[in-house]
Amino acid sequence: MSGPTTHIATANATSVTVRGRDLVNDLIGKHSFTEVFYFLVTGRMPDAAQTRVLDACLVTLMEHGFTPSALIARLTAESVPDQIQVSIGAGLLAIGSVHAGTMEGCADLLAKGVNETDADSWSRRIVAEHRQRKEAVPGFGHALHKPDDPRTPPLLRVASENGLDGRYVQLLLKLSAIIDETAGRHVTINATGALAALLLEIGIPPEIVRAIAVVSRCAGLVGHILEEQQTDSARHLVKLARETIPYRDPSPPSS
Amino acid sequence: MSGPTTHIATANATSVTVRGRDLVNDLIGKHSFTEVFYFLVTGRMPDAAQTRVLDACLVTLMEHGFTPSALIARLTAESVPDQIQVSIGAGLLAIGSVHAGTMEGCADLLAKGVNETDADSWSRRIVAEHRQRKEAVPGFGHALHKPDDPRTPPLLRVASENGLDGRYVQLLLKLSAIIDETAGRHVTINATGALAALLLEIGIPPEIVRAIAVVSRCAGLVGHILEEQQTDSARHLVKLARETIPYRDPSPPSS
Amino acid sequence: MSGPTTHIATANATSVTVRGRDLVNDLIGKHSFTEVFYFLVTGRMPDAAQTRVLDACLVTLMEHGFTPSALIARLTAESVPDQIQVSIGAGLLAIGSVHAGTMEGCADLLAKGVNETDADSWSRRIVAEHRQRKEAVPGFGHALHKPDDPRTPPLLRVASENGLDGRYVQLLLKLSAIIDETAGRHVTINATGALAALLLEIGIPPEIVRAIAVVSRCAGLVGHILEEQQTDSARHLVKLARETIPYRDPSPPSS
Amino acid sequence: MSGPTTHIATANATSVTVRGRDLVNDLIGKHSFTEVFYFLVTGRMPDAAQTRVLDACLVTLMEHGFTPSALIARLTAESVPDQIQVSIGAGLLAIGSVHAGTMEGCADLLAKGVNETDADSWSRRIVAEHRQRKEAVPGFGHALHKPDDPRTPPLLRVASENGLDGRYVQLLLKLSAIIDETAGRHVTINATGALAALLLEIGIPPEIVRAIAVVSRCAGLVGHILEEQQTDSARHLVKLARETIPYRDPSPPSS
Repeated sequence: MSGPTTHIATANATSVTVRGRDLVNDLIGKHSFTEVFYFLVTGRMPDAAQTRVLDACLVTLMEHGFTPSALIARLTAESVPDQIQVSIGAGLLAIGSVHAGTMEGCADLLAKGVNETDADSWSRRIVAEHRQRKEAVPGFGHALHKPDDPRTPPLLRVASENGLDGRYVQLLLKLSAIIDETAGRHVTINATGALAALLLEIGIPPEIVRAIAVVSRCAGLVGHILEEQQTDSARHLVKLARETIPYRDPSPPSS
Repeated sequence: MSGPTTHIATANATSVTVRGRDLVNDLIGKHSFTEVFYFLVTGRMPDAAQTRVLDACLVTLMEHGFTPSALIARLTAESVPDQIQVSIGAGLLAIGSVHAGTMEGCADLLAKGVNETDADSWSRRIVAEHRQRKEAVPGFGHALHKPDDPRTPPLLRVASENGLDGRYVQLLLKLSAIIDETAGRHVTINATGALAALLLEIGIPPEIVRAIAVVSRCAGLVGHILEEQQTDSARHLVKLARETIPYRDPSPPSS
Repeated sequence: MSGPTTHIATANATSVTVRGRDLVNDLIGKHSFTEVFYFLVTGRMPDAAQTRVLDACLVTLMEHGFTPSALIARLTAESVPDQIQVSIGAGLLAIGSVHAGTMEGCADLLAKGVNETDADSWSRRIVAEHRQRKEAVPGFGHALHKPDDPRTPPLLRVASENGLDGRYVQLLLKLSAIIDETAGRHVTINATGALAALLLEIGIPPEIVRAIAVVSRCAGLVGHILEEQQTDSARHLVKLARETIPYRDPSPPSS
Repeated sequence: MSGPTTHIATANATSVTVRGRDLVNDLIGKHSFTEVFYFLVTGRMPDAAQTRVLDACLVTLMEHGFTPSALIARLTAESVPDQIQVSIGAGLLAIGSVHAGTMEGCADLLAKGVNETDADSWSRRIVAEHRQRKEAVPGFGHALHKPDDPRTPPLLRVASENGLDGRYVQLLLKLSAIIDETAGRHVTINATGALAALLLEIGIPPEIVRAIAVVSRCAGLVGHILEEQQTDSARHLVKLARETIPYRDPSPPSS
């Protein structure tokens, strides 16, 4: 009577229905991957502007070279050839709080702040709190990309060109101004900050922000695994680890 | 001197380069997810026709209801909340030879057959060999979708509308004709057969065919995990397993 | 100069060294799995009493029927045959905060409480705090095993018979007495509570408590996967999910 | 009527039954991890000799330094802290055909050969076939451990001391003699060869041989992840990969 139900999909001999739409007649050949992905997670088909913003977000996250997830996928590919889904799955496990965390943290922040009536004083309070805890405000600063993360301007431009630089983007820019003012120097809005604002603008809920990174990186890992089949970087890495991380006998335990 | 190199990506303070292209100026906001995914795995930016075909393939595979991978993702989501990448990764591990296998098998077959000079006699030999081994030709027949897999016609239509119903599609149709003739009844070309032909038409190598399914299903799993956060289907499944799979004491071992 | 080092293992042409010991001459054939596992994580070879307690803990956690991790392993085994490590790995991902959480939570609690000078007043405070938050004290109560978890008495007996019912076990019993007194009825110490106390008694740090469950369950999953190769419970589960979780068209979104 | 059943475990309010035995009264505190693991996968409780051999096998495989699985577990631990089961699960995925393959391959070989009436001529045929295909006989030769794998003698000694150097061990030694004779030099029996013979001697079926490695390595990975929490080897590895695997612009594709 009160068991679970599903709104996602059902199939019978002659049709497949996805969230109330006919896969065969309404979706295949009519909508892009990005549109149907958005439809699946929000229940709404995106308009052209939302689609362009989501595409820009997905493209930004797809590839950043030798990340931990790429190295894990390559090491797994060398050990489990012919099972490409295992390498991909292993690599995606590492899209955790450390690497997708600031995007998620920034989205949480913006989702809360957007309901405040006084954005300026809220922003000052948030910046002061992080300063006191000696933590970076999530979405700001970058270890490599200085003084500015080069991925942020095109993301913000795509948002504004599509009329999607609304209250989340404005709040991000307000936070940025206060951070610069407080620090007495310019601190970059990094890509994860811009991505958080854009995803909220198009109606992606904060709890799914990490999943956007996972889907994007999933595509990126395929390229790494293909390349790994032609190079020997996994063996090279194992060799490097053995040569550069020396073994030391542990001192005898005191007990 | 002869260590591994990479062609995939590099980043410095002010730029990110992906396979020779500038991520910031050439890709973000200029190309869709599907285009950049194709670019990453083939090294070529697809034209509009290739993009439409790849989108149709990705949309077809994204969702098919309660598959093993969806159930695995849901069970994991109930056990490891707040780590959505773990549920996704666990679910993707199951896109193995059983579920992506016929697509891969059909692609292998078509990739070999396309080099034969006499398609008709090759097709007859392939069909006869499978018949003798009492195996289905990969890409043909379906347990649920009878008499015809409803996903196949729109896939083939997208191919022909975009001028991409070339020699792989023709070979698939030739195989289909011989199978029907030999069986004395109509056997459906299933979605995995059509997908195999379309992916080869646009230049996806057979060894990546499974990865296309993985990327597509990755997006689909996000919807399942979101729904799972609001329903209790994982607990329902565990309860059902306990109630419907009875425990029997093993008979004492003979040794 | 200041790069990472390792204390774990090194190998050369004629020897393998593990944490300062000669694998070949000191460990193989001289010590059990349980002893070497303890040695690897603590740096000390356990005495006979510690070994018996760790064995009892590992045996307790190995098997509990159709848990989520067992179902995940079985579903994966059906999809990815011949890669048993993938089924095991997928199942282990689910040993997360929900299922290993109360063991970890109880260990954290006991590790803090053991440094308090007044165990009685500390216990009363902890019980009151949980009562106020309407949360169970981790390690107490069980949905299935009532009035008492049958696994707890043999675990505590093994500890006392081996002289390892020290301050952690005493603190657990103190908490138990206060909980019963406060509730006005008997609440079972469940297996996770007893295990937490025993693992701390033998010097396992709280941050490794979950890993003990993972290693134990790893062995248990092998039995499930073997059985799955001879039964069809994964297919049965998929069928049940489809039959008992009905699809409902989503109501049209308001936007 | 004909649905699946299970022989593994069942639980009710007052008891847990594992393969026909009472977990509480018969197993906890009465048997070691190794004994119950053997019981779970074979249905028989091992005798003391079988237990010693299985312990020796499990200890041998537990640790071999910076293997791919250890590096994967460490990289994952840096990215997903506080979820130790994810690091372990990711690392175990790599115990695939490459790393556990020769053990499995040698077990398959011995399981077939043991039924031959003429061991000598069978061995000569096997060696000749591998020689012709320019493949090593699985279980023989080692890249690092030369001239002899130091782990093999203690394994064979444990077997003989426990009266378990029966027909599988004898067949392994026969193969070894023929290989040396054919090669005109000594080729080591490596640890995977010795392990394969020992596991078959105690009644472990060949399809479970890889799982023995998985359980053993599961314990070993815990030590690596613990150490990783105190060192920075994952970051070191990522840095090394970026510094030592140079990016090269791909040459423009010909199409």
